[in-house]
Amino acid sequence: MAKFLTNREENYAQWYNDLVIKADLAENSAVRGCMVIKPYGFAIWEKIQAELDRMFKATGHVNAYFPLFIPKSFFSKEAKHVEGFAKECAIVTHYRLKKDENGKGVIVDPTSKLEEELIIRPTSETIIWNSYKNWIHSYRDLPILINQWGNVVRWEMRTRLFIRTAEFLWQEGHTAHATREEAIEETVRMINIYAEFAENFMALPVIKGYKSENERFAGAIDTYAIEAIMQDGKALQAGTSHFLGQNFAKAFDVQFTDKTGKLDYVWATSWGLSTRTIGALIMAHSDNHGLVLPPRLAPIQVVIIPIFKNSVQLEQISEVALKIRKKLEAKSITVKFDDRDNNTPGWKFADYELKGVPVRIAIGPRDIQNGTVEIARRDTLKKETVTVDTAISQISHILDEIQGNIFRKALEFKKENTLYVDKWEDFVNILDNQGGFIMAHWDGSPETEEKIKEETKATIRCIPFDSPEEDGKCIYSGKPSKRRVLFARSY
Amino acid sequence: MAKFLTNREENYAQWYNDLVIKADLAENSAVRGCMVIKPYGFAIWEKIQAELDRMFKATGHVNAYFPLFIPKSFFSKEAKHVEGFAKECAIVTHYRLKKDENGKGVIVDPTSKLEEELIIRPTSETIIWNSYKNWIHSYRDLPILINQWGNVVRWEMRTRLFIRTAEFLWQEGHTAHATREEAIEETVRMINIYAEFAENFMALPVIKGYKSENERFAGAIDTYAIEAIMQDGKALQAGTSHFLGQNFAKAFDVQFTDKTGKLDYVWATSWGLSTRTIGALIMAHSDNHGLVLPPRLAPIQVVIIPIFKNSVQLEQISEVALKIRKKLEAKSITVKFDDRDNNTPGWKFADYELKGVPVRIAIGPRDIQNGTVEIARRDTLKKETVTVDTAISQISHILDEIQGNIFRKALEFKKENTLYVDKWEDFVNILDNQGGFIMAHWDGSPETEEKIKEETKATIRCIPFDSPEEDGKCIYSGKPSKRRVLFARSY
Repeated sequence: MAKFLTNREENYAQWYNDLVIKADLAENSAVRGCMVIKPYGFAIWEKIQAELDRMFKATGHVNAYFPLFIPKSFFSKEAKHVEGFAKECAIVTHYRLKKDENGKGVIVDPTSKLEEELIIRPTSETIIWNSYKNWIHSYRDLPILINQWGNVVRWEMRTRLFIRTAEFLWQEGHTAHATREEAIEETVRMINIYAEFAENFMALPVIKGYKSENERFAGAIDTYAIEAIMQDGKALQAGTSHFLGQNFAKAFDVQFTDKTGKLDYVWATSWGLSTRTIGALIMAHSDNHGLVLPPRLAPIQVVIIPIFKNSVQLEQISEVALKIRKKLEAKSITVKFDDRDNNTPGWKFADYELKGVPVRIAIGPRDIQNGTVEIARRDTLKKETVTVDTAISQISHILDEIQGNIFRKALEFKKENTLYVDKWEDFVNILDNQGGFIMAHWDGSPETEEKIKEETKATIRCIPFDSPEEDGKCIYSGKPSKRRVLFARSY
Repeated sequence: MAKFLTNREENYAQWYNDLVIKADLAENSAVRGCMVIKPYGFAIWEKIQAELDRMFKATGHVNAYFPLFIPKSFFSKEAKHVEGFAKECAIVTHYRLKKDENGKGVIVDPTSKLEEELIIRPTSETIIWNSYKNWIHSYRDLPILINQWGNVVRWEMRTRLFIRTAEFLWQEGHTAHATREEAIEETVRMINIYAEFAENFMALPVIKGYKSENERFAGAIDTYAIEAIMQDGKALQAGTSHFLGQNFAKAFDVQFTDKTGKLDYVWATSWGLSTRTIGALIMAHSDNHGLVLPPRLAPIQVVIIPIFKNSVQLEQISEVALKIRKKLEAKSITVKFDDRDNNTPGWKFADYELKGVPVRIAIGPRDIQNGTVEIARRDTLKKETVTVDTAISQISHILDEIQGNIFRKALEFKKENTLYVDKWEDFVNILDNQGGFIMAHWDGSPETEEKIKEETKATIRCIPFDSPEEDGKCIYSGKPSKRRVLFARSY
């Protein structure tokens, strides 16, 4: 299997696409820009959902569901918001098909034209704040801490599986607060949850920071993001949390009576993480053999493969395999015993490597005699023969070790590829020849950022929360700067 | 709270609507026919999802995700399918908005017209079978057992919260098989799972049966349904499972090589259950005090309400309450301790009755002295004072008893309201004056069914699987019949 993958070093983009297809994660659909998430890819999303949902609920959030459709007039109420999304939205204009009188099959019935067009939500601030208007009257109705799991549509022209698709799945949190401070606290809390999730579950080290004005969410006062580095040195934004101020409350006239009896507009946040994180997961860890999945998000954590020449051997091996599976499942480890007889063990080895299963246990006739099994780790590709009992007692530990090892490797890569640059010439050279995260000074103006983007395709990924104050000169304009910001080309 | 509900006996439809709104389950949105599912309502849907998903996976199914959009040409490929859904679908025709040059805000950019219109999925057979075409080549690729959780849109003209909305949430299973027998077996398996779920979790007795030709899913060879009776004597279809034969395989040219090397079209099923089941849950069990929720689907199973006059009392009560909560949570019981001080205990009692919380524990100062608590059951509204230890040890049992009691009550109601009728006059009278399920003979012709519907608004809900062979005469035409079928007016 693996040999059919394009070499990662030769063509990273093609390697990625091959991998997504051949590991059976997703494929392009017949609808422009929309993907089909296949069962193996969707199982990863289910794991992501389960963990995030647990984290959201542990911090007091509840789920709800708002309409897919947004009336055009709502969509237009917040000026920057509509400006940001107007150019890429799917628009429903009719609600009925009919038989063509000229026999050309089925056509849109012109008499079913809607009075007001409906936009398929690209994000739900407007339809949600229109509802919150009726829910919020007093400070007693606050905070509202709601999350929604669902699909959204942004009519992207250049798409890539998981990373950028016209329709994608995500969660969007929309919270309402009585004070500015509380809303900012929530915005920070959620970017921290995303970072914690990325590092502990996706094994993905991230940089948390503020977005520059140019890169902010349309309608936000402030956007915080987590940025991760991919193996080709490009950045990928894996989650964002927005402080919306009173913008949407003002657009939808959502006021409340505070404790002193005074009327004020409600403070808002929103935050989202989408199926594009699956793309990050793939790009950050995988190799020329295929996927490398962190055990905590792997749909199958251990695969057991029997090596046999006849049914007597298979029977003996199955007995041991089923015993191991039972013991591991009792420890909440997900195990697959692949006893199909239509593929060779070698084919299966390659296939589960391609699919990134963290641990492979192989059992052959000699193992049965010796009371042993062979354990192979996907991250290091190292093999070891151990007794059945050792395997059973050690697998949890090995899975933890793999999780840690993948994270450390990614952390090391990020460290090596984060460069502190002070000369424009170096800045350009690094971007053109090796890529990576560049920490450089910036004069703080949107114009400079725009020019840097035009000349190098690099943008400010974020202004890291932990970037220390440091006097310096802007990498482009030479004007004074107080701290370094993170530049990179990005997905 | 409860006094604001319309009386169920006076106006059942209004009682239902009041209940959905006042129990904070859902509300109408600003988008015609679309609802907002509020956190409390959505928590019920999450419980439903968790149980069904577990049952699907236990029977070998996996989840996946297919596009929201269906190209018009795909939608039209299966003739009966398009005929069934063409009159009620949302159609995307453009993909960009722009500023109006005449200053009238934002308008649809006419230059963004799509070459081919996209239909928002009302159901996904067509887009899924177009994908299966590439996935299936040999019998080794079969069966495919996929389920999808998502939203669909059917442009209904008359809507009602949960029961019938333009957008709704559901799951849709789409399976592919090598033989007719295997596909039929799957169709039966899934209607059985729905029935098991309805009876064991929703506490809703159902009748399983075949749909008549008039009521079949557009594109199916056979539709099986589960039908439940509501308290007003109307029927509600709570889940359907379709044997699709080779219809969609033929429409999308999906052929496979069987074990003998022969090419054949693939056999299909599809099956779905939606948020309308929440409507059934409400209508079947609730009363003039509000919701009555079966404990297995209740977001809050036990609420603890302190009765106190000062903070010292609250402190003493909290200590006991938190101990009880901890012990119950250890048994996987969901407990809410409502110690808010902005509402009276009486208000809270009424509110949790309205919300259908199965068990209420009240603790007052005298209880603290006596080491007791008061337990109230939502189903019977009976109260009892017991020791704290008894409460802790008995709550699981009480919840099981409530679950069983709600089911038995519904079963009794169904039995009392299922009538065997042989005269047309009685048939009409019963429908007009008392409603209910009517078991009557039918000559098997669509024309007769249509006439009965025109004259009485009753339809054949299903031909029950367990309806015994019995010679009789059609209730309408007098022609010979071999078995009784189930008639009712329906939601």
